[in-house]
Parts: sequence; structure tokens; C-alpha cells
Amino acid sequence: MSWDNAASISALLTLEDIAKAARAPPKPDAPTPVLALSAQARSKGYDLVCLPLTTENWKKRWTEMCLLPSGVDLDADMAAEKRAEAWRAKPNFLLDEVTITQLEEAEGVTALISEWLELDAADDWVRHDAEIALQQELAYASYLNIQTAILPPPRSREYVSSYARIVNACLKNSPYMHLSIRLPIYNPSVLENHLPSIPSPPLTGGLLPGSPTPSTPRLVIPDDRGSEATSVNLDATWEMWDVIRSICDYSTRLSLTLDLTPPLPVKSGFLSKWKAEAIRHLFLPSSTFIANTKGYPVLPKGTQSFIRESMTASILCHRPVVILAGANLGLHSMGGELAYSQYLRHLEKTSPAVQAAQTSGTVENFAQGYQDYLQAPLQPLMDNLQSVTYQTFEQDPVKYHNYEEAIFQALVDWPGEETIILCVAGAGRGPLVARSLSAIERSGRDAFVYAVEKNPNAYITLQGRKEAEWGDRVTLIFGDMRFIEVPEEADILISELLGSFGDNELSPECLDGAMRFLKSDGISIPSSYTAHLAPLQSSKLYNEARAGKDEKKRGDALCGHVPGCEPAFWGWWGARMGDADRRYKNAGSLNIREGMRCWTSGLGFHSPIAITRVRQSWISLSRTLEYSSDGLAGYFEAVLYGNIGLSIHPHRKDRISKDMLSWFPLFFPFKEPLYLPSNSELKVSIWRLTNQRQVWYEWHAEAFMNVVGAPLTDSDVPMPSPRSANGGGSLFGSPSPARSPSPFVDGNDSAFERRSFRRESVELGGGSRLIKIGHTSLHNPGGRSSWIGL
Amino acid sequence: MSWDNAASISALLTLEDIAKAARAPPKPDAPTPVLALSAQARSKGYDLVCLPLTTENWKKRWTEMCLLPSGVDLDADMAAEKRAEAWRAKPNFLLDEVTITQLEEAEGVTALISEWLELDAADDWVRHDAEIALQQELAYASYLNIQTAILPPPRSREYVSSYARIVNACLKNSPYMHLSIRLPIYNPSVLENHLPSIPSPPLTGGLLPGSPTPSTPRLVIPDDRGSEATSVNLDATWEMWDVIRSICDYSTRLSLTLDLTPPLPVKSGFLSKWKAEAIRHLFLPSSTFIANTKGYPVLPKGTQSFIRESMTASILCHRPVVILAGANLGLHSMGGELAYSQYLRHLEKTSPAVQAAQTSGTVENFAQGYQDYLQAPLQPLMDNLQSVTYQTFEQDPVKYHNYEEAIFQALVDWPGEETIILCVAGAGRGPLVARSLSAIERSGRDAFVYAVEKNPNAYITLQGRKEAEWGDRVTLIFGDMRFIEVPEEADILISELLGSFGDNELSPECLDGAMRFLKSDGISIPSSYTAHLAPLQSSKLYNEARAGKDEKKRGDALCGHVPGCEPAFWGWWGARMGDADRRYKNAGSLNIREGMRCWTSGLGFHSPIAITRVRQSWISLSRTLEYSSDGLAGYFEAVLYGNIGLSIHPHRKDRISKDMLSWFPLFFPFKEPLYLPSNSELKVSIWRLTNQRQVWYEWHAEAFMNVVGAPLTDSDVPMPSPRSANGGGSLFGSPSPARSPSPFVDGNDSAFERRSFRRESVELGGGSRLIKIGHTSLHNPGGRSSWIGL
Repeated sequence: MSWDNAASISALLTLEDIAKAARAPPKPDAPTPVLALSAQARSKGYDLVCLPLTTENWKKRWTEMCLLPSGVDLDADMAAEKRAEAWRAKPNFLLDEVTITQLEEAEGVTALISEWLELDAADDWVRHDAEIALQQELAYASYLNIQTAILPPPRSREYVSSYARIVNACLKNSPYMHLSIRLPIYNPSVLENHLPSIPSPPLTGGLLPGSPTPSTPRLVIPDDRGSEATSVNLDATWEMWDVIRSICDYSTRLSLTLDLTPPLPVKSGFLSKWKAEAIRHLFLPSSTFIANTKGYPVLPKGTQSFIRESMTASILCHRPVVILAGANLGLHSMGGELAYSQYLRHLEKTSPAVQAAQTSGTVENFAQGYQDYLQAPLQPLMDNLQSVTYQTFEQDPVKYHNYEEAIFQALVDWPGEETIILCVAGAGRGPLVARSLSAIERSGRDAFVYAVEKNPNAYITLQGRKEAEWGDRVTLIFGDMRFIEVPEEADILISELLGSFGDNELSPECLDGAMRFLKSDGISIPSSYTAHLAPLQSSKLYNEARAGKDEKKRGDALCGHVPGCEPAFWGWWGARMGDADRRYKNAGSLNIREGMRCWTSGLGFHSPIAITRVRQSWISLSRTLEYSSDGLAGYFEAVLYGNIGLSIHPHRKDRISKDMLSWFPLFFPFKEPLYLPSNSELKVSIWRLTNQRQVWYEWHAEAFMNVVGAPLTDSDVPMPSPRSANGGGSLFGSPSPARSPSPFVDGNDSAFERRSFRRESVELGGGSRLIKIGHTSLHNPGGRSSWIGL
Repeated sequence: MSWDNAASISALLTLEDIAKAARAPPKPDAPTPVLALSAQARSKGYDLVCLPLTTENWKKRWTEMCLLPSGVDLDADMAAEKRAEAWRAKPNFLLDEVTITQLEEAEGVTALISEWLELDAADDWVRHDAEIALQQELAYASYLNIQTAILPPPRSREYVSSYARIVNACLKNSPYMHLSIRLPIYNPSVLENHLPSIPSPPLTGGLLPGSPTPSTPRLVIPDDRGSEATSVNLDATWEMWDVIRSICDYSTRLSLTLDLTPPLPVKSGFLSKWKAEAIRHLFLPSSTFIANTKGYPVLPKGTQSFIRESMTASILCHRPVVILAGANLGLHSMGGELAYSQYLRHLEKTSPAVQAAQTSGTVENFAQGYQDYLQAPLQPLMDNLQSVTYQTFEQDPVKYHNYEEAIFQALVDWPGEETIILCVAGAGRGPLVARSLSAIERSGRDAFVYAVEKNPNAYITLQGRKEAEWGDRVTLIFGDMRFIEVPEEADILISELLGSFGDNELSPECLDGAMRFLKSDGISIPSSYTAHLAPLQSSKLYNEARAGKDEKKRGDALCGHVPGCEPAFWGWWGARMGDADRRYKNAGSLNIREGMRCWTSGLGFHSPIAITRVRQSWISLSRTLEYSSDGLAGYFEAVLYGNIGLSIHPHRKDRISKDMLSWFPLFFPFKEPLYLPSNSELKVSIWRLTNQRQVWYEWHAEAFMNVVGAPLTDSDVPMPSPRSANGGGSLFGSPSPARSPSPFVDGNDSAFERRSFRRESVELGGGSRLIKIGHTSLHNPGGRSSWIGL
């Protein structure tokens, strides 16, 4: 396979496999059964093997010591208890209780911890002794230099905190070991007694709590669109995982082994949240495969798409290892043992995301270099960028194309026959100057370009290009656009100061100054831009934001590709902005091209007011699936001219500026994740604040639950508004601002509109109300490490 | 007044008062109106004065600049905007815009910030300019060395986060200023248009958002027991306060000025949560007073009891200043201006809590020395206590009395005529030895006492007392009770190793050893003890727990008096313990005097199992009022013998061991407060953990909301329990343990029982379900600063 990032496949070896290998005559190059099986697996193309660490002998001894007092033979019970006490004081294995004894055997091995250990047993002593046994197994695995151990799944929602506490203690006691928690992808009790009749491989049953007897083979595939199956909690296993990882303080050595044994729905909306989690392994038994018409094993559509989508995440972030179980059981008539892994490799190779990643010019391809860390956003006002930085951004195939189109259209639309004056504010190394000239040529209009740049180093490049390429069609002006004077006012002002969140690279402050040299009826490209927010679940980003030892950096907004935040993942985009600005409403005589609403910046008019200082927004978002929000993702969308724009809005970017590479979303981390149950609403307050030296954001979120049918007793009586003339809105009761016309609002954004509508009807309709259930801290107060650039 | 901790009373001066004083001829010793008024207030017995910092002139200028563009006269608007811009760049007052200009005038003054500032206006610019004005006023107050400023109340639930963000910025910008937030004690919209017709003093209206016109004077006193008024949100103002203080990160320079203008219900259950908050001022207008039969002003019963209860808190923690407004308005026919403050002093003096604090021997009196800090619990096993520590605890008038009674009863009940062997395990300086001898004398039984003590210093004292007082009736044994041998086994083993949480001073570890020398049919005093937990709301304790710069100390359980945690405050005590221990159930041959349940320790039997290692509990607590839990309070209750016990359980301590001083509750802090809406349940997991060197607790909490009438879609399908024989309980579904008989359980603890019952019926009845809404971190993992003593 040409692509070297291919997913790894691990073969699951069972105790039976090992017993069978032990019966075969030993080979000189693989003198033990495990070595023989490992060599065999490698020869079959597996990357790794996964096997149980302990044997049935250990289970027998532990059970007799710790689990089975007869209650009849008191002496025997006392003797067992004495043995148990001795073991508790000095836990140890006997030789025949473990599968591996040599370092060589342990190489490339992922260890399965004894699946019968009940860390969340209701019985105090079972739990207590299970914890000792677990610590003992992990200590032995550490001794053998095994890197990763897979723990048996939690079985009880009631006692999952106990399971989690033990895992946390183990993470501390085994500082180099990675622990992976087995969990079925959804609550399998949904399917209890309705499982397919295909027999599971021996160990698989253990991965599925309940080991259901395959008695009544009626296959019920759950569906997230209102079928009967949704009336039970599909999210129960996710909720358990959420408890475990939070009790383990989001340890980076803790991950998931997601069991794909249960049948998956084709529409896997409710499963998509898993993609934001640290999935280290996907457990896949051969019994989950179905036979295609030729008899070869293939996966059901739902499982196919889940694995494909996991591989999308894997490209950008973490690649789960597929643990293939029971491939040697011969469950399918064609293809033999190798057919399963071959099929998986085929799935991966034909995944659109993998193909995109292998195609240069795509975001997926571009993002591979940036996948694993958060970056501090650029500060082009404070810092003079390096030439290599300009070069990186100039490679964007889409952004400058769209700019040229916008300039072209503006030129074509410009009335009259006089020379049109263009001004590029912030020319950098000149890409927009070149695009302007190209647009001028194409339009056939008579036009002239001023290029303003404050970076003295880039200004050298500009001078070189003027001499070599542009000649008299361009005049260069050296200086800061906020303070310089230009020879004449511009008809069209072109700038590219936008950050991932629109105004986070100080475009308002800069453009506020540059607007001085735009004619009062001039055109600004971009003509407006809007910031968007969405709550985000991503353990990885959360951990990374926390990991910064620099206390300053931790609270700040950071820029990074957000792999978990794919459109499918948070398909519940909906925002309600704060009230429109009275000032602007009253400023009827000003040339406002676009209705100002909070957090949208309309450009291209002379404003006597520093528009940059009052930015504040309240956004309410609702969703139906439970969720833990680690922070907010920030996006921008800009109207360049007419219906030409730039967008990183996950729902619209492909329509507006597909494959644009220049911006990754911004991440506004929370200090602690905010838990959001199903049917909750998140109310985000975000402020853009300035003083004489700095610009920064502060943010805060409150969670509410939408309780239907509950009596009206709480939180829903508005406070009196003594000055309704000035505002003084009530709880969630301020009128929605008139939506400003935008070339992008219509079209496939109906989810947004529908949500808004639903939201309001819920408010107005009786019998449902919002009850506050939690909040975050205020983040980044005082803007400790904000953009200094004024 | 003899008691020197009397509450302070502050006189509210209005702008009218100042204007009136300005018209009087200046006196040489009080040359300005404010100085004259201050002197006058002092002469009338007020401790402080409180006055508006700014005049109507400032309001007029600010309003004209920032609030009133005509929209018609564009030039005038532009001019106003220019003045506003100049002011924004350099905010300043003119002389006639402030009430105070001299340092002397500012002495003892609490400043009222301009009440018309809308920090939570819906309009971005009003908010923006109000923030600048607020910063300006605070800067001026700082210049005048004013220590405390009272801010106008938030008016909008919608924008309260904005209000809070501004307050937080002000706390940072004015590092020595204390800010106090005006808030009505409950949502006054409950009473909108139903306010009493008594006119409010000029400034009072401003304290009550809404300044309702007193048109229809129909007084509706809200009641928390199901009246109509409870159908609106009385807690709305508390919810706003909760947002403000959390956004301000629980700053110790932030407090409340609680406005008592609205009429208060006699049963003030829903108001009691305020008592746990940092109330710095109580605002009380003369219009709230009613006339008694003689025409003198007195307070309505509800307000009376709230003020009295606030003074209870004040004794132990923080004393609010009462700001008396409009005493000079002559609203009442008798008593004149002084009648109001005299009445308040009378209320305070006759408050039961104040009287108790002035009576030696009461907890209130004793606690005065310990009121303001959290202590690390004693570690008597690791440390050899000082003589002075013993002395402090020996002063307890109740504890040793109850011990003597228990020993006396045990002696009386002891069968047979032989000499009864008593053993005091951990004799300290000998109080229990003396009480044993006294009980022996009273009982007329033939008995002998062994006294075991490991502290070599206390052993000196014991030798002295034996020589001087006890003689041959006592044999001293020097050594650690876990390891020593005694000459003969005891009939009655007496110990006092209990900590605030029962087992937190290592009593299980010590007694496990000491049980060796108790006869198999012997009596242990205490015979059992039980730990209890309750969630706690106390900004003060939370802040104190956080303030420890020592990272180690922060996460740990701390011991301290918990003023906010009075029984009335959390009258919703209810606990459900984990499952009973299978081992003990099966240990039928052992002499178990009391059914073991998790977290209750039955003593007095020989156990082959180290009972100390498996302590874990899950407790569910429900309540109806919304709430923010800062941590857990831990209590213990011990059965000494028969129906004699010791208890710090808030509901039962007065019945079992009234005025016992030796134990303050334990506080288990959360890292971040956990928000609990009304009708929520808190599920606490707590573990007592041990290793070879340490004993520590870890704890974790999850919040659930009880949603009635919602469709069954979530979280309520139990996970399968593959091994139901061993437990494997489902979500909240484990069977309740059989309640063990206790002499204290019956009686007035019916709330406990009722809760439990209600809780279960809700589970079983259809149509209601628990939805998870939040959780805390795991606290104190690894027991960083736990008790080292094994």
C-alpha cells in the first residue's frame, strides 16, 4: 500500500488458539506457542497481536480465594480466607496462570486483562479483590514491557464511579502503561435477546457485557430516527465512558477499545460523538461480518460507514487499531482467514477521506502537517510575518481565486468610465495586488492599484515585484494603514486581515483606520464578515489546551484543526445573536451596506464611532443528544463581494470556498468540560474586549435543560425591565434581531432556521421551560495572553 | 451593650439629605454637608454612613452624552458623540457631579455607585459606557480611600453574565476596593403591583428593580409551602448572584447587599440559602417596618426571623451591616428616628443565638474561637498530642458525661457477680479512666480498669493520677493498642478514637488491633458509629479551602465549624447507603452486635477480616430548591451503649448530645462548585482507602435531575448484570440494605424516611426519570496529604 499511514490491524489470539499451538511441535525459531502464533499472525499481514494475559488457572484460584465461600464448610472458608489474606498482602502469579513469560513473547502484544474482573461489582470485597488483581496483572504486564492493556468493560452504571476510581489509581501506579477501556459502542441491552445467531468467537462474548444467549435471533438494528429502539438509552455506554475519563482527569494514557459487535444503524448520528473520543482500538469480531453474494465476508453498511469515518478522524488525529477476532473460525465460505483484513484495507483505501488526504490541494492533505497541535493564532499587526509564512498562505488555491472573482465582479459592476482606484490594504508579498491586476485585465476596465504594507521586509518583495511584474499599474505605499495618508481615496478597498474567528487578527482595528481612504460610496472587499461559535467535544484538544504548562496559554483561544468537529458530528448548528445595536439602528444617514448585527462587521462606510469596541454576543444552542462540551469552536464567514465569499463554517464551507486551506477553526477551551444532557441548551456569552494595548476575548457558558411538561415553577418569570426603552431584556426574552440578508443564508442551511423556530416555539408554548443546570467559569478574564497590537 | 460583637448599623443618606444639609449654615467642626450629616449620624448612634457618590448633575451629563441622541438634530448628536468620545478616552468628573471631595468626608463612608448605571443593558453601547462610568466612580472612590462600594442591582437574567464580567473587571482594576452587589432577597416581580402602599424612601426604589408604582397595595406574602406565589421563581435573584460570584471566581472582595424591602414569609425556608452567602449589608428601609399597637416601628415576623438568623451566622462568621434607610422620614408615629435602630439592637440582643454565644458551655460560645478557619483534623495516631490539646477536649461537658452513663449502664447490665474487667484503649490524660471509676462506684459493681496509652508524655500524667487519685483500681499499660499484650481480656473495652467523620482519626485501624483483648462476649463502648454526608453550600468555606496555596492541602478534607450548614438550612437530609457486605452477611458465626452496613462500624467482635479496608459508599440526596454545592459536610454519630450516644448529626445532635463541643463537621471540598437545580439529586461516591502507610478519602459526585412527565428515552434502562449473584447493580437499582436497628433512627428523623420512600416511589412509578446533568472531578486521588499513621 502506497500510503504509509494505513491503519493497523491486530489479530486477537484466544486461550484456545494458544492451547492449540501448544499441542503443535515447537519450531526452533518460535519455541513457545505465543511466539509461534505471533509469527503466524505477522506472516498473515497483521501488524500486532492482542491476547489474554492470564489463563483459566488464575481465574480458578482467584475465584476460590475471593469469591466462593461455601457457607457450609466453615474451616474450608477460613482456609480460603487465609490464602486470600496472604495473597492480598503479596499478590503473585504462578507460572501456569499467565500466557506470556518472556520478553520476546510480549513484543508487539496488546494485553487483555482478565475479563472476569468486576471492578464495579456491587460487593465491596469483590471490588476490593478485583482491584488488587488488576494491579497485579498490570504490574506483570509492565514487567514484560507491554505498552497497552485492555481492561474489561464496566458493567454497572450504579458503580461506574468505583470502576473509574480504580482505573485512575492504576494509571498512577503504572506510569508507563496505556490503559484502554473496552466498551460496546452502545448499550447492548437494546438488543438483549435479539442478537444475530452467528456464534461469537470465544473471547468476544466477554467484550459484550451480558454474553447473551443467541436464542431468539431477531436482528433489531437501532436507528436514531424515532424507531422503537431509541426509547432506550443508546448513550448509556458513552455516559459511563464520560464518567471514567473525567474521574481519570482526562489522562492521555487512557483510551477506548470500542466494541463494534452490536449491529450499527446506517444513519449513525447518535454514534458520531464517539469520533471525538480517544479511540485506540476498534474491536471487530468476524461474526459481525456478513457474506456478500459471492460468500466473501463484508461489513454491514452501518459498521462500514462508522469504520470509514473513524479512519477520517484517524488521518487527522489518532488512528485506531482494528482488533480482528475470530478470523480463523471459518464463519464465511469464501476468502479464508485473510479475507477479513483484506476487506478492511479495501474499506480504508476507498474511504473518501483517505483518498482526499492523498490528493494534494485538499484540506485533508494540507492539514496532515498540522494535525497534532494547537497553534497560537497569528498576530500580523504586532509581528512582521516571515516570508515563509506568507508563502504558506499564498499557496491557498481557493482564497485568492475567490478574491480575484470578487474584485472582477466589483470592477464590472462599478458605474461610470473613469479610472477606478483600487487600494490593497495590507499587501504582504503581493498576492492580492497580482490578483487585482489580473481582475483588471479580465474586466477590461481602466483601473489603478495602491498597495499599502507596513512590514518593511515584505515591502522589499513588493518593490521587487513592482519592478519585475507590475510596473506603473501599481503604486506602493509603505506604512501602517491606520495612520498613513494616501494620494487619493479609493473606489475599491481590498484587504485580507481576517482571522479564523473573523476579527481575532485585529481586522476591525486596522480597517477602522483604513476606511479613511475609501470613498463614501466605495466598495470594501470583504464587505462583511461574521463570527460563529459551536460547542465542541474533543478530549484531544481539551487535553492539549490543558497540557500547556504555561498558565497564560491555557486559558487562551487557540487555533487548530478540529478533527472531531466535523459537520456530521455537530449537526445541530443554531445560533441566536444578541440584540442589534441601537446606535446603528439610529444611524440612518450613514451608508450601511449591510444591517449591523452583533458580531457581524459590515465594512465600507465611514463611522464616527469606533466600531471595534462593542462586541458581545449571546448565543443559545440546543441539541438532543447528551454531550460533554470541552470548549467552543470559532469560525468565520466573509462576504467578499456579491455572492462570492470565504467560509470555514462547517456547514457551508464546501459550498462557498471548498478546499480553502488558510484558516483552521479557533478553539476556546473551557477549564472544565461542561456536561450537557439531551434536550439541553447552551447559552454562551462571549465578549471581544479592548484596552489601549490589547484585544482579547472572554467567554462564559451556562447550560439549561429544556424540561417539557414540568409545572411552571422556576426560572421562567422575567425580571422586570425598568427601562425597556433602553433594553433591559428578560430571561431569554429579547427579540431576535432582524436577520440581515446574506448570500449564504438561504440554501441548505435549513437546519439552522428550523432550530431557531423550534426554539422559539418551545419558549412560547406552555408547559416547557428552561432550567439552569450548570455553568463554566469566566474564561480568559483580563486577557492574560491576548493579542497585543494596538 | 456589653457584647462587643454587636452588629453595625449604617445610616443611609440621600441626595435630598445632603441638599438639605447644604442649606443649613455650616458649623465650624463640620464645614461641609456630608461632614455635618456624618457627625449627626454618629451622634444618633449609627456606626457608619452610606451615601450616593454622585449627584444628579453626573447623571444628566452622562445621559446626554451616552444615552440620548435625538435622531433628529444630527449635528447635536454628533456633538454629543464627540463629547462622549472625549470622555471615554479620559473619563472624569466635574466638581458638582460628586457628593464627596475630601478625605475627611469619606471616612467611615460606604459609597453607593450611581444606581442608574445599567451594566446589563441589552444595548451594547449603554453597557459599554456604563462600564466606563462604573470604573470611573470606583477609581474616584479609591482615590478617597473608600473601602466598600455598593453596586446597583442587576436587572436582567438575560444579560447578567455581562454585569458579572464587568464586576470581575472592576475587582481586578480596583485591587483594594470591596464591591457589594445590591440584590432584592427574592424576585420582586412576584409582588409586582402588589407592593405595600407605604412610600419608599427616595433611594430605596432604586434598590428594588422595577421601582413599582405603589398603585394597588395588595400585600401578597410569598410562602414556600405550596401557595400560589411559589409558582414563580423566587430564586431568580439567587440564581443571578450565583452567576455573578462564579464569574468573579468567588472573589473574597465581592459580597452581597441584600435588600430586605420585599415582605418576607414567616417560614423562610426558601430564603435560608442566603445565609450561606457573603452578606455584607442588609438593606432595610423604614417603610418595611410596621407599627406595633403602641405605634412604634417593629418588623414583620418574617423579616424579624431572617435578621435574627443572619445574626446567628454573623456570630460565627461574617456580620452584615444593617443599612437603615429613611429613618428620618417619620413614617411611624412613635419613637422618632432612633426607634428603628433601637429596635434592631433589641432584636439582636434577644436573639437566641446571640444569647447562646454569650453563655459559656454552649457550642456557640465555644465556637467563637474557631469560627474563621478550617483546621486539618487531628492525627492522634501519628502525632503524640500536646497536653493543652487534651485539656481542650477534656472540657467538653457532654461527651464524658455520656461516656460515664454508657459505662454505668454496661456495668449494671453485665451478668454475673465476678469482677468486671474494663479496658480504656487510648487513655490520654485519663478522663475516661476517671469516668470509669466513677461509673463503677455508682454501679456498685466489682470492677477493675486497665488503661492503655501510647503517648509517653500523656503516660506521665497518667502515672501521676494513678498515684494521686486512682491507686490500685487501675493498671497502666504503656504501648500501642495495635501491638501490646494485656494481662487479661476485657469485658468492657472503652475507647474515644472517633473523628468528625467517625473513622477519619483511624479508629478502625486502632480498634481492629484492640479488639484482640476484648472477650468474645464483651462490650465495646462505643458499640458502633456511622458516618454521614450532606452537600454543603458555603462560599466562605469553599474560598478558604481554595485559598490554601499549598496545593496539597487544597484537595483534602478539612475540619471546621460550618456556619452555613445549620439544620434549617439543609432540611433535606436523606441518604441511601450502599449494599451490605456479603462477607458479613455470611459470617454467621461471628458475634455481630449490630448489622454491618457500609460506613457503619459495628465494634466488639473478633473479625478475621481487616474491616478497615473496604469502605465505600454511594449516597443519593434530593432536594427541591436550587443550589450550588461547594462540597460535602461530614458528620458522625456513635452509639456508646444502649440508647446513649454521641452525635454531631445536625438533625439529632441536640437530642443525643446537646452542647457537645469536641467535634466540628468535616468539610470535603469540591474543586468547582456543582450546580444543583431544583428537583435534582446528588449521587455521592466516597471511598475510604488505605495502603501500607496511609488512610485517605476520595470522593466524587454526580448530579441528576428528576424530570417528571418526560418520555422514557434515556438513562433509565439498566445495563445487563451478567453476574447478579455477585451484585452488578443497575442504575440506582440496587436493593436498599436492611436498616440496622439504632436507638436514634426513630423519632423526629421522619424527613429521612420520607425522603427515602419518596425517592423509591419516584423510581418505580412511571413517567419520571433521572437525567444526568453534571459531575465533579475525583477529589483527593492518591491521598496526597492524608493521615499517615499506620
